[in-house]
Amino acid sequence: MRVLIKNGTVVNADRKAKQDLLIENGIVRELADSINPELPCDIIDAEGCYVMPGGVDVHTHFNIDTGLARSCDDFFTGTRAAACGGTTTIIDHMGFGPAGCRLHHQLEVYHGYAAHKAVIDYSFHGVIQHINHAILDEIPMMVEAGISSFKLYLTYQYKLSDDEVLQALRHLSKAGALTTVHPENDAVIARKRVEFLAAGKTAPRYHALSRPAECEAEAIARMINLAQLSDNAPLYIVHLSNALGLDYLRLAKARHQPVWIETCPQYLLLDERCYEREDALKFILSPPLRNASNNDALWGGISDGAIDVVATDHCTFSMAQRQQLSGGSFNRCPNGLPGVENRLLLLFSHGVMSGRITPERFVALTSATPAKLFGVWPHKGQLAPGADGDVVIIDPRKTTTILHEELHDNADYSPWEGFQCQGAIRQTLSHGRVIFNDGQFTGSAGQGHFLRRKPFSPFNGK
Amino acid sequence: MRVLIKNGTVVNADRKAKQDLLIENGIVRELADSINPELPCDIIDAEGCYVMPGGVDVHTHFNIDTGLARSCDDFFTGTRAAACGGTTTIIDHMGFGPAGCRLHHQLEVYHGYAAHKAVIDYSFHGVIQHINHAILDEIPMMVEAGISSFKLYLTYQYKLSDDEVLQALRHLSKAGALTTVHPENDAVIARKRVEFLAAGKTAPRYHALSRPAECEAEAIARMINLAQLSDNAPLYIVHLSNALGLDYLRLAKARHQPVWIETCPQYLLLDERCYEREDALKFILSPPLRNASNNDALWGGISDGAIDVVATDHCTFSMAQRQQLSGGSFNRCPNGLPGVENRLLLLFSHGVMSGRITPERFVALTSATPAKLFGVWPHKGQLAPGADGDVVIIDPRKTTTILHEELHDNADYSPWEGFQCQGAIRQTLSHGRVIFNDGQFTGSAGQGHFLRRKPFSPFNGK
Amino acid sequence: MRVLIKNGTVVNADRKAKQDLLIENGIVRELADSINPELPCDIIDAEGCYVMPGGVDVHTHFNIDTGLARSCDDFFTGTRAAACGGTTTIIDHMGFGPAGCRLHHQLEVYHGYAAHKAVIDYSFHGVIQHINHAILDEIPMMVEAGISSFKLYLTYQYKLSDDEVLQALRHLSKAGALTTVHPENDAVIARKRVEFLAAGKTAPRYHALSRPAECEAEAIARMINLAQLSDNAPLYIVHLSNALGLDYLRLAKARHQPVWIETCPQYLLLDERCYEREDALKFILSPPLRNASNNDALWGGISDGAIDVVATDHCTFSMAQRQQLSGGSFNRCPNGLPGVENRLLLLFSHGVMSGRITPERFVALTSATPAKLFGVWPHKGQLAPGADGDVVIIDPRKTTTILHEELHDNADYSPWEGFQCQGAIRQTLSHGRVIFNDGQFTGSAGQGHFLRRKPFSPFNGK
Amino acid sequence: MRVLIKNGTVVNADRKAKQDLLIENGIVRELADSINPELPCDIIDAEGCYVMPGGVDVHTHFNIDTGLARSCDDFFTGTRAAACGGTTTIIDHMGFGPAGCRLHHQLEVYHGYAAHKAVIDYSFHGVIQHINHAILDEIPMMVEAGISSFKLYLTYQYKLSDDEVLQALRHLSKAGALTTVHPENDAVIARKRVEFLAAGKTAPRYHALSRPAECEAEAIARMINLAQLSDNAPLYIVHLSNALGLDYLRLAKARHQPVWIETCPQYLLLDERCYEREDALKFILSPPLRNASNNDALWGGISDGAIDVVATDHCTFSMAQRQQLSGGSFNRCPNGLPGVENRLLLLFSHGVMSGRITPERFVALTSATPAKLFGVWPHKGQLAPGADGDVVIIDPRKTTTILHEELHDNADYSPWEGFQCQGAIRQTLSHGRVIFNDGQFTGSAGQGHFLRRKPFSPFNGK
Repeated sequence: MRVLIKNGTVVNADRKAKQDLLIENGIVRELADSINPELPCDIIDAEGCYVMPGGVDVHTHFNIDTGLARSCDDFFTGTRAAACGGTTTIIDHMGFGPAGCRLHHQLEVYHGYAAHKAVIDYSFHGVIQHINHAILDEIPMMVEAGISSFKLYLTYQYKLSDDEVLQALRHLSKAGALTTVHPENDAVIARKRVEFLAAGKTAPRYHALSRPAECEAEAIARMINLAQLSDNAPLYIVHLSNALGLDYLRLAKARHQPVWIETCPQYLLLDERCYEREDALKFILSPPLRNASNNDALWGGISDGAIDVVATDHCTFSMAQRQQLSGGSFNRCPNGLPGVENRLLLLFSHGVMSGRITPERFVALTSATPAKLFGVWPHKGQLAPGADGDVVIIDPRKTTTILHEELHDNADYSPWEGFQCQGAIRQTLSHGRVIFNDGQFTGSAGQGHFLRRKPFSPFNGK
Repeated sequence: MRVLIKNGTVVNADRKAKQDLLIENGIVRELADSINPELPCDIIDAEGCYVMPGGVDVHTHFNIDTGLARSCDDFFTGTRAAACGGTTTIIDHMGFGPAGCRLHHQLEVYHGYAAHKAVIDYSFHGVIQHINHAILDEIPMMVEAGISSFKLYLTYQYKLSDDEVLQALRHLSKAGALTTVHPENDAVIARKRVEFLAAGKTAPRYHALSRPAECEAEAIARMINLAQLSDNAPLYIVHLSNALGLDYLRLAKARHQPVWIETCPQYLLLDERCYEREDALKFILSPPLRNASNNDALWGGISDGAIDVVATDHCTFSMAQRQQLSGGSFNRCPNGLPGVENRLLLLFSHGVMSGRITPERFVALTSATPAKLFGVWPHKGQLAPGADGDVVIIDPRKTTTILHEELHDNADYSPWEGFQCQGAIRQTLSHGRVIFNDGQFTGSAGQGHFLRRKPFSPFNGK
Repeated sequence: MRVLIKNGTVVNADRKAKQDLLIENGIVRELADSINPELPCDIIDAEGCYVMPGGVDVHTHFNIDTGLARSCDDFFTGTRAAACGGTTTIIDHMGFGPAGCRLHHQLEVYHGYAAHKAVIDYSFHGVIQHINHAILDEIPMMVEAGISSFKLYLTYQYKLSDDEVLQALRHLSKAGALTTVHPENDAVIARKRVEFLAAGKTAPRYHALSRPAECEAEAIARMINLAQLSDNAPLYIVHLSNALGLDYLRLAKARHQPVWIETCPQYLLLDERCYEREDALKFILSPPLRNASNNDALWGGISDGAIDVVATDHCTFSMAQRQQLSGGSFNRCPNGLPGVENRLLLLFSHGVMSGRITPERFVALTSATPAKLFGVWPHKGQLAPGADGDVVIIDPRKTTTILHEELHDNADYSPWEGFQCQGAIRQTLSHGRVIFNDGQFTGSAGQGHFLRRKPFSPFNGK
Repeated sequence: MRVLIKNGTVVNADRKAKQDLLIENGIVRELADSINPELPCDIIDAEGCYVMPGGVDVHTHFNIDTGLARSCDDFFTGTRAAACGGTTTIIDHMGFGPAGCRLHHQLEVYHGYAAHKAVIDYSFHGVIQHINHAILDEIPMMVEAGISSFKLYLTYQYKLSDDEVLQALRHLSKAGALTTVHPENDAVIARKRVEFLAAGKTAPRYHALSRPAECEAEAIARMINLAQLSDNAPLYIVHLSNALGLDYLRLAKARHQPVWIETCPQYLLLDERCYEREDALKFILSPPLRNASNNDALWGGISDGAIDVVATDHCTFSMAQRQQLSGGSFNRCPNGLPGVENRLLLLFSHGVMSGRITPERFVALTSATPAKLFGVWPHKGQLAPGADGDVVIIDPRKTTTILHEELHDNADYSPWEGFQCQGAIRQTLSHGRVIFNDGQFTGSAGQGHFLRRKPFSPFNGK
């Protein structure tokens, strides 16, 4: 099986060239100014297009049971949508298991979720929902099993205390795992929420007001320092949404601390005005949308290199679920937005086409850096001989209007409805096979593979 | 003559309240929760609207002869457009006079330009086009005549050397005048321009490439330091367009240096993609448009208070002039954009309505701070008893699409054609008289007065 | 009673002039270029000297029982030492009372400590050692009684949780009290301490290593954000010792948050090399001494205005107490340094005489700003008609070597032994009475008055 | 010839280990935990000491004729002093030649100066004193001859204009040469100087006041931007003395611009109080000494990595010369300080021993980074097999008081007289030969070699 992509501009995180690209048996075989295949092969003409490594989305929540509800994308609909948006690898954050469960419990559950369903390659982040000797001892075995990153929560049902965080950071670091964290101050949220509900303030805007930017920024500063105090354990901040948190992280980076930052398109392009809309319930997620000044500041981090990764935090709860469960009160509405299909195009349009970033930096943010940080580089995240034939072809000359009815996830709405983008996803290839072609999904359930990820190395992120 | 504006939200730079506002004989007489006039008066119902001090635009170039061409708005069409955009005071930058002319020469010329034409109140900034004893001695007389700010150019025909700048700064400061400066490095522009022209690179994009951001940033840093070294002379940077310059100015402000910063809507909302358009010639101005990252950074300065003033640099050259004069080469195209009518609404929509700034800060940026810096406070820049009855009423519920055909200047195009804004200018009052009403200009030429401005005081800008 | 101080340079926080100063009945009556008294008066010739408002030291711990031991300076020896160092007002941090005690309990105890003992005027900071409705309700009564500032601890016996901090901040702010905080992360200290002790690492250097800079910085960032989230409650950080914490506070100040910063001479001039000395036990205090880079950064904050107050955290435990109680292990050694007598001269020498700060800024740091923040301005903190006749006269031409045997506190050592200073404290006056004169204490116990402080006002600190 | 240095701690810029070091025929042959030589060799016991690469001082002015005078150290006395201070390589800045002279003219002159004199290895920086086609064409030949760095002056006799700087930067960069610059604004100095002299203000303090910090900062910002605009030409700022300039350079580094920063011990440890001393004439140099806040800020840059190199700017004019030439007026006093012998110990004592920097960073600052930037790495700047046997052995347990009478240069005073240092230079080796031993110079004139330096490579400085 051979595919030759001709006449495009091949982009990697560190270079860009007008080149042809040959994939053989699912593996990139050659890049050259001009390739004339000796053997028969499928030819894709990418004239005028960018040919880039398929997207690596390291923040999704398929099938997740949050306690309030189960998200309505599973590993088929979720990865199908990813594929149609140019993403060829996802790393899903496992949800909480039963109280006191072993780490492997959830891993087994998630292997069950993904098998025979995933359209593209996948892995999982572990989650530390409590700390004891058994859990700490189990961490190295999980890393051995390919799970080289874990998430800590500072709020929600299984939040960790500072002392537990210190233990987790040190053990994870020692075992070769990267600690990721959902940073929000639980005491603040609890108190604000009680006050709003007591005052009958249940509208969606109070969801946002109960989780202000400083509530997130506090937790970020705390994690930065606890990580530094845990033998300088590597730290990855998920879904950054606010400017002050970014300032704290910039200080840490200036001190050469091993911290990395993820944000999501919704924190770059949507803002709190959504909570004044009639359909505000569509935009309940945590952290919530902020004001446009936070957008500006996060774009600053995208442009100057402070932010390392753009992921989606894709977590679909349909409007049907939202309306039924919330019963009109923000605190009962499940949290999360769909978006796995829109990430690449949103960032391409508003990042590359607006002149904020180069195509190379786009690849770094969406593919190369997450691949390095989460142990799937060099197979993922680049187009180079020996790498997997995972490719996205983007046409910068077309324009796209995002419409829910044309998306491939299982949601019943899109937060991006009507959004205009400069550019279009033309084709997606996974292991050399075209799985998305000009609007049509052409892949199939079960063709994705579990990625046994390498341990975290301090050099991964360079 | 009495006008009562009822039911609106009256906004000043330091407060906001639902209040009625009574203007009597052109002067604000009273603000109160509810005013029932004892005497007959015209009543304007501002329910749901913001009632704000009329805009003070301290950067226009009406009638200016740049050597290449004369701008095609005079003091009638220019101030008419200002009025229709909610601006009730303009301070125009006088152009260069004949080589060696006295400062008063240009003042007389400009009094001639404005008399019987201006629809709203006006004043002029002086310009220092050369330095000698006579000029330095003449400065105090100009301040006496109400001209308490002057402009220096670091490029163009009458650029000043560092030594001349040092002399100007010190004498202006001592005389009670604020130094404003057009900061671009002339040597850089000259060299880049020669190289591009030699290579046949004459398209509009080379205008921008011949005046890069660092060319402006260099001159800003130079002026900051020359001002500090001139007994800490007060300094006002016009039309800031780039992030690095803003960083330099932030450092100066952190050191408590008396510097103030102006930017313009075009540097917040337009970007260098305009130079790829077919009608790129429309966007030739200096400094040129930058990329979207510079927009982001300038919005940051708007939000956090680093930037003090939003003005327009309104300087109209019609497309007819542009095409004829440029003959296809960027270097012969006159520089400047129209926009005096669009300033308030653009900033209101993208600043206030987007959540970046409060209505109070909007007033500070567009009216109160420029009024203080340039010596027309307390009559201008606020709605308080005793102030002039200059008012703009903005309806935040309407949406506006900017169309050249609906504007009131003398241009034959608008750089903002098709731009969407949330909000609409509903009425403008000058000295209590309605001069713009729901789309209609209702003022008349010659009703504007020359403002003899007060000397600059270090406390003006506080 | 009249005292005329002639020929000196009178310095206030905002001005400096060669002037004579007349005090009558303990109150400043007149400042003028030259005063020739009509009535008989004592004359002090201050030729060549600075005449400044007496120091206001807002951080001492006289008589405090920390659980481990009672500090060995009481309100007589402590204020005697203060007086001999040029300080004429102290505000002492009350220690913890019995578990569950009312706020007034400690106030009564401290009134008992100070009465008939204090040589100079004094007040107390309250302490919130637990939260319940009764305590929250008692706060306004304490403010009424003149106690308009309280301290929270995030470590030690009565540390508060985040939720308790939120409640305290909001109630204190509403009641007109300023919240001060000892910021160190308790979980970090507990874990480090356990690990060091388990490894037999008991030497003084492990005291410092168990409380690293990031442990303090974390708590500072947390408090900044919790305060902002508590209706922007005013916040005062005591004894800042590290650069990262300062960076966090700079960000808060740049956002116009009402936060103020105190540091102490030991964090400016001593460093962690002290823990390598044979007499390292002398330097056990919390937060501990840092490295010289932190000194540099704090001096940066002194110079550029980021730091608002220099206090001492004077808390004397003699070497006898230290050796006996510690038994060789850092964790049993009581924490604290003497120093109330050395503050002014150390900052004068290394701040003013080194060219880092002006004499005016010296007065702001040591007297005017703390007086404003803690409600004793305008009687304290300035030399102006109507203010108390509290004066320190400093001779910049002399040099002083600090020697324990010449100090007036009850310690048996000085951490500053042998330290060289440019300048000398020549005289101290309290209410116009000379209480220190060229090396001799001339005051008497009981002459100091309790200061019923005014509620905190947001403008106090301006 | 074999030398074995046993029992020391060998330090390189990126690592540190207790190791033995064997030098054979002048070249480092082996580093190992323990080396027992098979062949006879000299053994140096470095127990308790640091064994480091010999210092590389890239800023000296031996023999220079400044127009006012000729510096009184030649290549023998200058390099002898360097050797006795632990420095084994110098790169001297050539002085101006006759007006209009070729670049090679000065190179020949300097080869003449150094031959048969230098005790240690040496090279020269070129100087661009005017611009024309011949000079620009000659640059590549100079690089070929081993001169891969040049200096531009923005003040003094042969200052370059902005346009000349643009030309120089681009041609130097293209030819593989690093541009170094003396950044001070000439117009400012000229004007201040005239004003002071006209007012009869001729004392040494007016030297400093005529060249304020902002005068240097302005020129730094200008050079940063001109370099960026010259195809991002690499830039090296010599003798940084002020905080604002450092802030500008930090901004450039944050933008990933290829700029490097040098400072000197005098800007870290001496301050403007020297100009109040009776012997103030000793401290006339350019840029002048600043206040202690600038010291603090520069130490900040040393600690956090912003500053890359510590050199000396050694340029000796004896007090005899100073007094005779100045005739009591600052403007006629030749500029410069001796100090080539004191650099390593001053930085070791106040950097390493104070806890501000690690020994590794000390090596980076004094040896490894300058060696890389100026094309003499890997032979210089490290102790690794194959590198030159240039070594300095520092004993951290000793204390040193700097006394002119013990120094080895040709000055008649030391600006560091009486300065206390923790540590002592014990031995210096050049090509394996001991040239300084416990206070005694043991080398000989002419044993140093000219270093034909490699072209600048963007990776050199990493």
